[in-house]
Amino acid sequence: MSLLKGIAASSGIAMAKAYSLVQPSLSFIKKEVDDVEKEIKRLQGALTVTINELEAIREKAKVDLGEDKAAIFEAHILIVNDPDMVASVEEKIKSEKVNAEHALKEVTDMFIMMFEQLDDEYMRERAADIRDVRKRILSHLLGVKIVNPSMISEEAIVVAEDLTPSDTALLNPQYVKAFITNIGGRTSHSAIMARSMGIPAVVGTKTATEVIKDGDLIIVDGLKGEVHVNPSEEVIQRYKDEQIRFEKQKAEWAELLNEKTVSADGHQVKLVANIGTPNDVESVVNNGGEGVGLFRTEFFYMGRNELPTEEEQFESYKAVLERLDGKPVVVRTLDIGGDKELPYLNLPKEMNPFLGFRAIRLCLDKQDIFRTQLRALLRASSYGNLKIMFPMIATLDEYRQAKRIFEEEKQKLIGEGVPVSDDIEVGMMVEIPSTAVMADQFAKEVDFFSIGTNDLIQYTMAADRMNERVSYLYQPYSPAILRLVKMVIDAAHKEGKWAGMCGEMAGDEIAIPLLLGLGLDEFSMSATSILKARSQILQLSKKEMEDLAQTALQMSTTDEVIQTVKKTIQK
Amino acid sequence: MSLLKGIAASSGIAMAKAYSLVQPSLSFIKKEVDDVEKEIKRLQGALTVTINELEAIREKAKVDLGEDKAAIFEAHILIVNDPDMVASVEEKIKSEKVNAEHALKEVTDMFIMMFEQLDDEYMRERAADIRDVRKRILSHLLGVKIVNPSMISEEAIVVAEDLTPSDTALLNPQYVKAFITNIGGRTSHSAIMARSMGIPAVVGTKTATEVIKDGDLIIVDGLKGEVHVNPSEEVIQRYKDEQIRFEKQKAEWAELLNEKTVSADGHQVKLVANIGTPNDVESVVNNGGEGVGLFRTEFFYMGRNELPTEEEQFESYKAVLERLDGKPVVVRTLDIGGDKELPYLNLPKEMNPFLGFRAIRLCLDKQDIFRTQLRALLRASSYGNLKIMFPMIATLDEYRQAKRIFEEEKQKLIGEGVPVSDDIEVGMMVEIPSTAVMADQFAKEVDFFSIGTNDLIQYTMAADRMNERVSYLYQPYSPAILRLVKMVIDAAHKEGKWAGMCGEMAGDEIAIPLLLGLGLDEFSMSATSILKARSQILQLSKKEMEDLAQTALQMSTTDEVIQTVKKTIQK
Repeated sequence: MSLLKGIAASSGIAMAKAYSLVQPSLSFIKKEVDDVEKEIKRLQGALTVTINELEAIREKAKVDLGEDKAAIFEAHILIVNDPDMVASVEEKIKSEKVNAEHALKEVTDMFIMMFEQLDDEYMRERAADIRDVRKRILSHLLGVKIVNPSMISEEAIVVAEDLTPSDTALLNPQYVKAFITNIGGRTSHSAIMARSMGIPAVVGTKTATEVIKDGDLIIVDGLKGEVHVNPSEEVIQRYKDEQIRFEKQKAEWAELLNEKTVSADGHQVKLVANIGTPNDVESVVNNGGEGVGLFRTEFFYMGRNELPTEEEQFESYKAVLERLDGKPVVVRTLDIGGDKELPYLNLPKEMNPFLGFRAIRLCLDKQDIFRTQLRALLRASSYGNLKIMFPMIATLDEYRQAKRIFEEEKQKLIGEGVPVSDDIEVGMMVEIPSTAVMADQFAKEVDFFSIGTNDLIQYTMAADRMNERVSYLYQPYSPAILRLVKMVIDAAHKEGKWAGMCGEMAGDEIAIPLLLGLGLDEFSMSATSILKARSQILQLSKKEMEDLAQTALQMSTTDEVIQTVKKTIQK
Repeated sequence: MSLLKGIAASSGIAMAKAYSLVQPSLSFIKKEVDDVEKEIKRLQGALTVTINELEAIREKAKVDLGEDKAAIFEAHILIVNDPDMVASVEEKIKSEKVNAEHALKEVTDMFIMMFEQLDDEYMRERAADIRDVRKRILSHLLGVKIVNPSMISEEAIVVAEDLTPSDTALLNPQYVKAFITNIGGRTSHSAIMARSMGIPAVVGTKTATEVIKDGDLIIVDGLKGEVHVNPSEEVIQRYKDEQIRFEKQKAEWAELLNEKTVSADGHQVKLVANIGTPNDVESVVNNGGEGVGLFRTEFFYMGRNELPTEEEQFESYKAVLERLDGKPVVVRTLDIGGDKELPYLNLPKEMNPFLGFRAIRLCLDKQDIFRTQLRALLRASSYGNLKIMFPMIATLDEYRQAKRIFEEEKQKLIGEGVPVSDDIEVGMMVEIPSTAVMADQFAKEVDFFSIGTNDLIQYTMAADRMNERVSYLYQPYSPAILRLVKMVIDAAHKEGKWAGMCGEMAGDEIAIPLLLGLGLDEFSMSATSILKARSQILQLSKKEMEDLAQTALQMSTTDEVIQTVKKTIQK
């Protein structure tokens, strides 16, 4: 019975057995072997087990996750069956009298290097596959168990150092009830995934993978950021009651599904959702979203070997616009680079990727990529209410360039007789401090602003939000951030434009009163946060929140702001 | 005869032969050898030549650079003579019948790994030495020439990809007439070194190391950012004339050595210098500096194996304060981390070091280091006019913590009866956007601000200034930057405090009119820029510059600002 504390990253309560997603060590040493034949048998045994295992995983993945995701395991089976590779390993064992582990390592190293040097993107990806397969074969040679998250087949709470996009892709949402991680904060991938899956998560516990054993009974309290390991009967009962209360509250929120979002004193705002793929659209509709405030388009480009075609993108944009049925959909153009790498673009490694060649910087340089995306968007525009925004704009020059390219593609399509909507709003993300400071100038040229607080906060505080040693500086309620947000909203309104926010802050209980008071027009958040936010805003007075915001702007520290907001909303 | 263009990083004109500081490839492949004895002889030959070479370098370094810097080569000789290591390499050649290069690589790899894993800082440093020595031995085995910058013994212009601090430490300032580099910008190490040595530099030429051969006659035009390779007689004559004009202008500037810096309409400002070591003080005095606006203290901590003692620091601070004879000296407390690593602190690698655990963040965490420095400063304070500032402050909480620690150490020293000045001003760097935005709140608590534009610009624009792909966003004249600077200056003046600037911008011809107009009180720059800046300010009207600044603040792009300033100052 023990209690772990972490960061409450996604709300809700879950109770289930722990599934420890921790990979064991696969280290070994080079050894001489006397009985070469025996060693080759050992290798063949490991290969057979590996193939059986991969086939089982493939079949399960087909059922749970679809043909698409199962295909990767098919590719892995082909590698294990590759006669060239197997022959080379056997040859090495024979000629050098070394253990199978060493021979496998040397031969696969050579293949990996060969593939990585090829000028073909598809082949380069194969190097990563070989690494994966090698890990699996080694695990059988060494007799250690590696973890196969895709094999989870009963309710489980996943415990990991951190969850990567490829880990989460293999998780079956049907069985995974919560996440617990050692590292990360509210804006880490694990946290965002949990919110989008609507399951609770506690991140940044530091020691979860050490403290929790596979099969421990776990309660995750995603409201308080607490994890109970093998709790007492009393704690279990308490949480069962709590769970019932939480479900009841969710039922109350559900009644607001088709309501407008109007403050107690009659001021209306828009609550919209952030989505990452067209599949997320259902959740927007089911959670009462009044549109999409941020459609991230990176998914098109990631986890594949080549750029997406115009056609493919067009179909997806069209599907989302149609499903939203006239409600606004704000699409953000490609924000790749930084921590999101695309191997097939061959971008050089950077010392500070968050301050590097990414998003609009990359798009203005590699215009073919940018123009293809804009054409797909323009073609889709006649199927709904499309708005487009550019990420990581730092200067007006950049915005003007991007807008000009947009206009050029629009005119070309019109010239080709393609139907294009004639009222596509074009705006920009405000996530770089310079643009907040210059918002009055930008407001004359853009149709709208969307404040991206995750980045805006990290640049304004000069603190990498993924770096635990400085994450204390990630302070959304800092008066400095509030002042920048105010500059942006005021500038927009002065020119008759609207201002939204699509960072994590927009769905946050403490931030919402301040943002309402500052006059924010559109709040874009995880779909699963919308009803809760609506329920909160219905009870707030815009006028009172204006006074609250005015007070907060004149405070000197984040703590003062938090205390004052709490006092006000608890009244 | 060819012309290379780059960035004018340090002004002046130089003419000399090229010295190409480019290291050759030392790659080789593993080979089997039949005649083992012959291979061992080859190794021994290379070792002998290496020792001879190192002895020659050591003797020359003693004379040119002092015992201090020569000691490193003594250590290298010991490594080459290490009987253990030599025996291991010979043994490997014998037992494995491999070439000397491969045997040397494997054995030294083992030693390097061993040293790197030790828990002793001194021993870990040895790993780096072994790498250096291995390079030298390999060069003799492979018959390629490696470059020894410390052996330069006639006037030369150094041409390199980039210059690292360890490269420049080995250069004899007596012979080096200019720098040319492929990469870097006005704020790179090479550029700053050149300005502090008072020699011209052209950086960011992209191809200098390819185009220029060792021994080519070179003219470096550090005013225009041009490099002439093997110029015609006509160009040579033109530059000889130019050099004379430049010397004449320098002579005119020299007459302003003891003048105050007063604008044409009678507004006085202070021109002070940035220094990096106590040795730089002479240059401040010789160039008419009215004090030191930024004394970087990192040199104490770098290029060594352990933290500097309080005594050692005290002596240096005292020496600088005494030499400045009552003129103000602003010392910045330790700004380590980011791109400046200290191996003996064992800090973890960071994904975005510029947004990481550095400067005051590290000092508030490792308070023993911080307190030692503050005690040394406090003890030195009674020997001159000391001011202290904290780097990388992001929030008022951090400033208050740092200030409290300062007060604690001050009271302790007073309690111990140590004389401490009772009017040490305590201020902060403004280099993180949040602090500019919140300057009104900070101004109530600090004694002064010093705007660090190098960092402020890179955070405000979210662009790593060392990353060439986004360096176009390093825009000192951007209206966004000017607005932040204005916030800081206005906030300071409102509370009766003063505001300085210690980034590269403060000594820049285009920036000076704007900064004068914005009301900046103190301009801190490379000592060698002071007289030129004074000569410029004497001719400007503060009143007119106020109007110019007002206009610039309302502009939308950097280009507009630059054009307008140029038009104004050319009138």
